[in-house]
Amino acid sequence: MSDGRNGLQLRSLIKKSGELEISLVDVPTPEPAADEVVVRVEATPINPSDLGLLVGAADMSTAKASGTKDAPVITAKVPEGAMQAMGARLDQSLPVGNEGAGVVMRTGSSDAAKALLGKTVSMIGGAMYAQYRTLKARDCQPLPEGTTAAEGASWFVNPLTALGMTETMKREGHKALVHTAAASNLGQMLNKICIKDGIPLVNIVRSKEQADILHKIGAKYVVDSTAPSFLDDLTNALVETGATIAFDAISGGRLAGNILRCMEVAINKTAKEYSRYGSSVHKQVYVYGMLDTRPIELPPGFGMAWGVGGWLLTPFLQKIGPAEIGRLRQRVASELKTTFASHYTKVVSLPEVLDPANIAVYAKRATGEKFLINPNKFA
Amino acid sequence: MSDGRNGLQLRSLIKKSGELEISLVDVPTPEPAADEVVVRVEATPINPSDLGLLVGAADMSTAKASGTKDAPVITAKVPEGAMQAMGARLDQSLPVGNEGAGVVMRTGSSDAAKALLGKTVSMIGGAMYAQYRTLKARDCQPLPEGTTAAEGASWFVNPLTALGMTETMKREGHKALVHTAAASNLGQMLNKICIKDGIPLVNIVRSKEQADILHKIGAKYVVDSTAPSFLDDLTNALVETGATIAFDAISGGRLAGNILRCMEVAINKTAKEYSRYGSSVHKQVYVYGMLDTRPIELPPGFGMAWGVGGWLLTPFLQKIGPAEIGRLRQRVASELKTTFASHYTKVVSLPEVLDPANIAVYAKRATGEKFLINPNKFA
Repeated sequence: MSDGRNGLQLRSLIKKSGELEISLVDVPTPEPAADEVVVRVEATPINPSDLGLLVGAADMSTAKASGTKDAPVITAKVPEGAMQAMGARLDQSLPVGNEGAGVVMRTGSSDAAKALLGKTVSMIGGAMYAQYRTLKARDCQPLPEGTTAAEGASWFVNPLTALGMTETMKREGHKALVHTAAASNLGQMLNKICIKDGIPLVNIVRSKEQADILHKIGAKYVVDSTAPSFLDDLTNALVETGATIAFDAISGGRLAGNILRCMEVAINKTAKEYSRYGSSVHKQVYVYGMLDTRPIELPPGFGMAWGVGGWLLTPFLQKIGPAEIGRLRQRVASELKTTFASHYTKVVSLPEVLDPANIAVYAKRATGEKFLINPNKFA
Repeated sequence: MSDGRNGLQLRSLIKKSGELEISLVDVPTPEPAADEVVVRVEATPINPSDLGLLVGAADMSTAKASGTKDAPVITAKVPEGAMQAMGARLDQSLPVGNEGAGVVMRTGSSDAAKALLGKTVSMIGGAMYAQYRTLKARDCQPLPEGTTAAEGASWFVNPLTALGMTETMKREGHKALVHTAAASNLGQMLNKICIKDGIPLVNIVRSKEQADILHKIGAKYVVDSTAPSFLDDLTNALVETGATIAFDAISGGRLAGNILRCMEVAINKTAKEYSRYGSSVHKQVYVYGMLDTRPIELPPGFGMAWGVGGWLLTPFLQKIGPAEIGRLRQRVASELKTTFASHYTKVVSLPEVLDPANIAVYAKRATGEKFLINPNKFA
């Protein structure tokens, strides 16, 4: 085993010429400052939010492998129309990987840093697709005894996003919520939270198979947007739950507008008085993903008390502040094997991340496929 | 002059059969409770927000006059497709008129009520298209010496809506704002407020003539959405002003999305760092009107820090609370002849409101046409 003074790091580069290049580089491990630690990364997931940085707008069907077995290189073409959106990252070799877990090998001189020595910790902060990562002690979360790095790797993005949804619901005065693309890993986690916390959750899925997945884990309200009775089914679920906030991963098309419209119909089923401007109950859709890149279309028909907007984890965490973040992180750590358990279809080494056969699977972002990287595994 | 024990009141009724009926009825004036006053209404405007209740979804080109000269009746057809939206008001004879001004004739026993006796006051609360109105003393605003009822009639809806926009801008952390359909009465008032208060305002208009109106009253940033250079013009104005919030009266189509997109481009002109999710500066469009009833279309291209939502005066006032409302009302009263001056093209009696020749003009909602009713004028 290496002494950790240097190690491999995955890099993603999009060149002005329109070419994506993914490679592994050997980089020195920064010495820890007083409040920092050096972690040997043993598990780091490939999330949809990582793919945005890892492959960018490249067309991965054009991917070509080159380099050597130990230092493989992947290149792929970025379609011309997509280059404008890549403007701000051109010709920069960027490290990748939002979250991960591993063992603290060395620490800085502060008490907070020294307390972590030898511990298995979860981490957040980017550049996790690497053998070693130097980072602030406060960006590490010690895992409970008996929890492995693999179990703690996906501790932040999905768990805190799902908790961010129920927290946002409560903070903005709603008592139930709607989630779209609800059979995703994130959606299943949200169901476990809502069942545990007694929060009514309306799941919108796009197939019978996805509905079955959710029913199996105990979801009560599941509506299929491809069913002819979708709008009635959704309205009925909204009447039963009283949900007036939705989190939408799909974005484009009429789904957000349909949710607002059905909410308005559901609210008016119990309204007593005529209001020219529609119900005065605020109805909110937060868009946090963009599975459909067409325009969002919002026809009239839900009054004036409504909002649609973007929702991201980082601004939400900035808003709630360190004490609340700590409370949520602690909950995730203590329920990592239950509510927040993640399941992986394959564990790969860093060179294997650059294997075209693996790319073909994980770059599809298919529900049910999730890869875990062990940067200190060498085949 | 009547003793005010009873008087004419305008009523609007939409029948289940699909017919609108506007009529004048003689109603007893309610005796004032302790905290109430009786006002002889001398001036009350026909605002776009009143027309929604007065004519509803009726097609006024089908309007027919009947009844007598003193008790005229207007009937008109409501198109079948529009009847669903009228559901909550069917077969109810509704009084009309959001705001007005007049002289306090009688009062209840409270000190606050007695203090208003004989005073000329502005009023808010509906049912103003009437000779007499009994209402709470707190819904009256005494006018400064030398201010007439006609000058004080439009004291609430437009002035507080315009002030609500600049107040919302400040409360949500923006430093400049955008307004669409900006040559309207409301838009001109907003320009006067912004010039007086030193707030940069980007006016979006739909013709050269409207741009001229605003330039004449001193507007600095005016962009014409029908010009080929619109998006560049708007972006330049957003760079210069730093506006990140817009109030939109139009709603349907791509305008809201274009404003958000141009805001994002303007923000990124000064951004230093690559962010996958677009700029982290929150961009907001509040829709407060629906001049275009097509769906709102929001294409991607402005990151995740954005919101679009409905904005109405009443919820805004509920949010800021009585003390702040009082401060805004006081400002309006003291600037009624300057910043908040309204101009009317015609003063009509209650029977004249039901004259088809007048309806043909005021029901068009044309910029520049504004009617004032004097319910105690009899031709």
